Amino acid sequence: MGKGATLAIEVRPEEKEPIFLALARAIITEIEKGKLKPGDPLPGTRALSRNLILNRNTVDAAYHELTMQGWLTAESSRGTFVARDLPDFGRELRLVQPAVATADRKRPMLDLSDGAPDPRLVPIATLGQAFRRALSSPSFLVDRAYGDPRGSLALREALSSYLKDERGLAVGADNMLITRGSQMALFLAASALMEPGAAIAVETPGYPLAWGAFRAVDARVVGVPADEGGIDIDALELLARREKRLKAVYVTPHHQYPTTVTLGAARRLRLLELARRHRLVVIEDDYDHEFRFDGRPVLPLAARAEADVPVIYLGSLSKLLAPGLRVGYAIAQPALIRRMADRREVIDRQGDLPLEHALADLITEGAVRRHARKARRVYHARRDRFAALLRERFADVAEFSIPAGGLAVWLRLREETTVSAETWSTNAGRLGLSILPGVRFMMTPTSPPEAFRLGFARLKDDEMIKAVDLLDRSRP
Amino acid sequence: MGKGATLAIEVRPEEKEPIFLALARAIITEIEKGKLKPGDPLPGTRALSRNLILNRNTVDAAYHELTMQGWLTAESSRGTFVARDLPDFGRELRLVQPAVATADRKRPMLDLSDGAPDPRLVPIATLGQAFRRALSSPSFLVDRAYGDPRGSLALREALSSYLKDERGLAVGADNMLITRGSQMALFLAASALMEPGAAIAVETPGYPLAWGAFRAVDARVVGVPADEGGIDIDALELLARREKRLKAVYVTPHHQYPTTVTLGAARRLRLLELARRHRLVVIEDDYDHEFRFDGRPVLPLAARAEADVPVIYLGSLSKLLAPGLRVGYAIAQPALIRRMADRREVIDRQGDLPLEHALADLITEGAVRRHARKARRVYHARRDRFAALLRERFADVAEFSIPAGGLAVWLRLREETTVSAETWSTNAGRLGLSILPGVRFMMTPTSPPEAFRLGFARLKDDEMIKAVDLLDRSRP
Repeated sequence: MGKGATLAIEVRPEEKEPIFLALARAIITEIEKGKLKPGDPLPGTRALSRNLILNRNTVDAAYHELTMQGWLTAESSRGTFVARDLPDFGRELRLVQPAVATADRKRPMLDLSDGAPDPRLVPIATLGQAFRRALSSPSFLVDRAYGDPRGSLALREALSSYLKDERGLAVGADNMLITRGSQMALFLAASALMEPGAAIAVETPGYPLAWGAFRAVDARVVGVPADEGGIDIDALELLARREKRLKAVYVTPHHQYPTTVTLGAARRLRLLELARRHRLVVIEDDYDHEFRFDGRPVLPLAARAEADVPVIYLGSLSKLLAPGLRVGYAIAQPALIRRMADRREVIDRQGDLPLEHALADLITEGAVRRHARKARRVYHARRDRFAALLRERFADVAEFSIPAGGLAVWLRLREETTVSAETWSTNAGRLGLSILPGVRFMMTPTSPPEAFRLGFARLKDDEMIKAVDLLDRSRP
Repeated sequence: MGKGATLAIEVRPEEKEPIFLALARAIITEIEKGKLKPGDPLPGTRALSRNLILNRNTVDAAYHELTMQGWLTAESSRGTFVARDLPDFGRELRLVQPAVATADRKRPMLDLSDGAPDPRLVPIATLGQAFRRALSSPSFLVDRAYGDPRGSLALREALSSYLKDERGLAVGADNMLITRGSQMALFLAASALMEPGAAIAVETPGYPLAWGAFRAVDARVVGVPADEGGIDIDALELLARREKRLKAVYVTPHHQYPTTVTLGAARRLRLLELARRHRLVVIEDDYDHEFRFDGRPVLPLAARAEADVPVIYLGSLSKLLAPGLRVGYAIAQPALIRRMADRREVIDRQGDLPLEHALADLITEGAVRRHARKARRVYHARRDRFAALLRERFADVAEFSIPAGGLAVWLRLREETTVSAETWSTNAGRLGLSILPGVRFMMTPTSPPEAFRLGFARLKDDEMIKAVDLLDRSRP
C-alpha cells in the first residue's frame, strides 16, 4: 500500500465516542484481520481524510493515538507504518508461560494452558469510560482519602444484587469482601480460618495456587481424590473421621479444576451434610460461573447451604473480564467477612477505588451482563470447534468429555498408549506451544494422570488450528 | 436560576477532548466554586445550547454524563438539578474517618488527620486517557493472560529510571517489586525477612499499620523512642546488643511518621554502621519523598548504603497521586525481591496490568514529574498558610516546628497546659472534625505525647479556615 493509497474501512463511532477513536478502532481491526501487516505503510493523512470524508485533524489524532498505543510507528520523513514488533495476528498469538517469577520478555509462545478468558472480548471503550467517570466522580475526588478494607460499598451492593439475580445467593453488602482476584480471597479465607497445624482438605488433581495460599498460613493441606464425578465424598468422610484437626474443605464444584467436571446433586448433598456433622467450613471456588454452555449454570452450594453449614463462596471478575484486571470477592457471614477484612487491612489496606467504582457502574448499568452473554456465545462456539479438532486429530491416542462449562478441556491419554503427557508437553514447549500436563495439578509427582488441561477460550479459529497443529507435531 | 435561564460559563475543550466533556467540566467547576448549589435547577438544554452556541445533543450528553457521575439529578418532568447529596464545596469537605472496617456511609466529617494528598489535584484526564490506552494496547490484549508477580516490566523500568534521576537510587527492574500501595510492600518485606518470634525495631511514636504488618507474620515488634532528631540511635544500639533475635529495623528517615522530623546526617551514618555491625536489615519507608518544601529532598539511606548493609526501600505512588489508587513498590537486592515476589504470588498473584501500564506511561512521558511539581507548589503554599493559622490561633496552648517536608504538622501541646490531646480530639469529633491525638501512634497508651498529627494537604483555603475554626471551638 503506497503513501497515496487509501484504506477501505468503515468508521462507525459508538455512542459518544469521538470519531478519531472510531477510526483508530477500525484500523486496529484491519491489523487484527491481517489486512494490514507489520511493516505495511499507511496512507497519508491527507489522502485518507479526503477518501473517508473526515477532517484531516481527525485522521492525525487517530494516527497519533495508535502510535501512542504501539500499533503504528511514525518514521519522520517516510510516513506512518504498522509497527513491526506486533504479533502476526494472522498466524499466532504471543502468550505468557505459566505464571512464574521470571522476566517479562519471552519468546513468542502459543498457549493452550490453564483456561484464561480472551481479553480481546473486553468492552474496552465502556470500561475506559467508566474508569474515567469514576476518577471524576465526587466520591473519588472529595468523599474520602482511604476506603473500607471490604471494598467500596457501591461495588458490594452492585455485586450482591447481581449475584442474587444470577446465582440465587441471598446476600447483602455486609456478606461481601472485594479482593484482588480470587487468589487474595483464598489467602484471606485461609488466614481467617486456619491456625498453624490445622488441616484443610483439597481436591487432587486440583489447584496448586490455592494450596500455596493455605500453606502460607502454615495449614496442612491434605489431598482427597477427585474422579469423573468430582471430589470423592467417601474419601473425604474417611479423612474427616480420622483427622481431628480438619477445619475446612476447598472445592470447585461447578467446574472442577482441572478436570472441568460438575459435582452432581447427590455428592453436593452429602458434602453439605458431612460438613455439618464434622463442623467443616466449605470454601467453594466458583471461578468461572458464567461460562456454562449446556443448560443453566448449577446453583452454588452457598445458595443451598443451611445456616449451620458455613460456606465461604469465592468468585472472580478477572475470569469474567480479563485476568489482568484483578478483582475477586468472598461471600460469607458478616463476622467472618470482618475477620478477613481485618487481615486484609494489614496486607494492602484496601482496593483501588476508581477501578471498584468503574466496575460497580458496569454491573449496575448492565454492561457486565451483556459482556457475559457475548463471551458465553463466543466461548461456546470455540469449545465446539476445539472439541471437533481434538476428536479429528487425537482420537487414536486420547479421549475427553465435552465440558458442560468452563474454558478448558481435560484431555486424557488412552490407557493403552504408553505416551507420557509430561514428555509431550516438553516437546510442545520446544515448538513454542505451552500446555500443562496432569502432573502439574498433583500434590505429589507419583502416578500423575496422563492428561492435559487445555484452555481454548483465548484462541480464534486460525490460532486454534495452529495450536492443535503444534500439539499434533509434538507427539512423543 | 429558572429553567429558561442560562449559565455564564466558558467551555474550553482540552486537546482531543469531546466538547460535551469540556462542558461537563465547566459545570463541575461552577458547582465546586459554589455558584451552583445543591438543589439548584439547571437551565433547560434548549436554552443553554442556544446561549452557548452548542449543539443541543452536546448539552444533553454533558447533562447525562454529570447525572451518571452523581453531580446532577434528573427529575423527569421538572428538569435537571444539582444533586442534593453533594458536599457543600463552599464550606466543607466530607472526608473519611481514620481507616477502620466500618460502613462506607458516614456523616460528613472535616478531616485534619494523617496527611493524605488532595485527589482533586490528580491529572484526571491524563490518567483516564492513559488507562484507556493501556486497555487497548497490544500488550494487554494479546501478549499475556497473567503477568509477573513483581509487576509489569514497563512500570519497573520506568520507575527505576525515575528513581535514578530523582533520588540517586542506582537500581534496575530486577531490584523492584510493584505492590498494592506501600502497605503490601511492608507485609511482603515482613514475610520475607521475619520468622515467628524474631524481633523488629520500630520508631515510637510511629506507624501502627506497619506494626500490624509485622505482627501478622508473628514477629515481635519492639519500640525505640523517636525524638526531635528522629529515631534514638543510642536506644537502638542498646536494644541490638540485648536482643539477640533482632533482625531488622523499620524507619521513616525522610519525614518521620508521625512527627515529620528528618533524620540528620550523623544519625544516618550511625544507623547504617549499627545495621552493618549487628546484621540488621534496614526497612526504609520513604512514603512522601516528593513533598519537600525547604531545600532539596534528602537522599535515601538506600542511596548511600554499602553493599554489606541490606536496605529494603519502600515508596508509594498512592501518596504522590491519590490514596485511592493503590500502587507502591519495594526496592532491594534481586534475591530478596524474588523471595517477596514468591510470597506475593500466593497472596494476590500480580497487580492490575492496565493500571500498571498506564502509570508506566505517565512516568515515561513526564506527567508524574509535572504532577509532583504542581502538587509540591500547592502543598507548599498550604503548609505556610496552615502554619500561619496555627500560630495565630493556638500560640497560647501549643507549639510546632514548620515541617521541611511532608503533608502534616506535629502540633505539641505546651507542657504548662493541662489540656489532654485525647479529650480535645473527642470534642472535635463531636463537632465534625477528625484529628488524631498522639496516643494513636504509640505502642502502649501510657504517657502518650500530648500532640496531634494534623494533615493539611487536602484542604483548600476556606476548608482550612473552617477546620482550624472547629479545632479552636473544640478546645477542652
